[in-house]
Amino acid sequence: MFQKPEELIFDHLSQTDETLAIAESLTGGLVSDKITNVSGSSSYFLLGVCSYANAAKINILGVKPETIEKFGAVSQECALEMLKGILKISGAKWGIATTGIAGPTGATKTKPIGLVYIAAGTSENYHCEKHIFSGDRLMVKEQSANRALQLLSSLF
Amino acid sequence: MFQKPEELIFDHLSQTDETLAIAESLTGGLVSDKITNVSGSSSYFLLGVCSYANAAKINILGVKPETIEKFGAVSQECALEMLKGILKISGAKWGIATTGIAGPTGATKTKPIGLVYIAAGTSENYHCEKHIFSGDRLMVKEQSANRALQLLSSLF
Repeated sequence: MFQKPEELIFDHLSQTDETLAIAESLTGGLVSDKITNVSGSSSYFLLGVCSYANAAKINILGVKPETIEKFGAVSQECALEMLKGILKISGAKWGIATTGIAGPTGATKTKPIGLVYIAAGTSENYHCEKHIFSGDRLMVKEQSANRALQLLSSLF
Repeated sequence: MFQKPEELIFDHLSQTDETLAIAESLTGGLVSDKITNVSGSSSYFLLGVCSYANAAKINILGVKPETIEKFGAVSQECALEMLKGILKISGAKWGIATTGIAGPTGATKTKPIGLVYIAAGTSENYHCEKHIFSGDRLMVKEQSANRALQLLSSLF
């Protein structure tokens, strides 16, 4: 039977009593929404932060301003600092972070629409992936959110 | 032409240069997700906090532990403190806060599944509504998120 990644996450976290927190930028709340569509998720999902503005990334998640200045908010470095930050402020064991360009505006010379960095893991064991997804704004959000959930569940 | 409430919010906020932040509990990120489905929302949407755990409501949003002890997390008092908190930490002019019981578990003798408190407004002009929505978990989330967006847009 096909299981959605958020259901695989439920299976693992509800059995282990481990916890989860999520930091989102381009996915805009969609990762948290999918997690909380699963009944029982309140036993492990502690906190989602949708840090859409750079100031929110810095002030709430503790991303360094220099990181955003040097690499941009859409970068592996920013994704990893978002992950580190959400784990710290929530106290959760597992975390997910997403940052990217959903479009249709926001592309730069070096960063196309659909460019997404997804980080997931614990404070000691984490991965970061770079993707360039196709499609419109909602399709980029959807693919990014699903891949973020898949990445997390692959790490259990 | 029918306009979704998140499109009415776009029309107002993109014209006025005012800003928005969102504190969610039972809606689990869905309000932020709908806001960020609208291209251009990054110009006014600063921050979403999905404070699913009570500790997140207290530590991130500044809800008083006494408020949760006395009235519960699903209460008008908690919704209003979540609204106050998200406005404070984000610096946004406008805010939305939701708290409730999406089900199918979580009901108490005095608080049925589908009970939802929705607060919206500014720090000086805000409203809080109580609803009891019917349907399953996803339907309760959907109705709550849509009503939260409608409530905000009615206040402009």
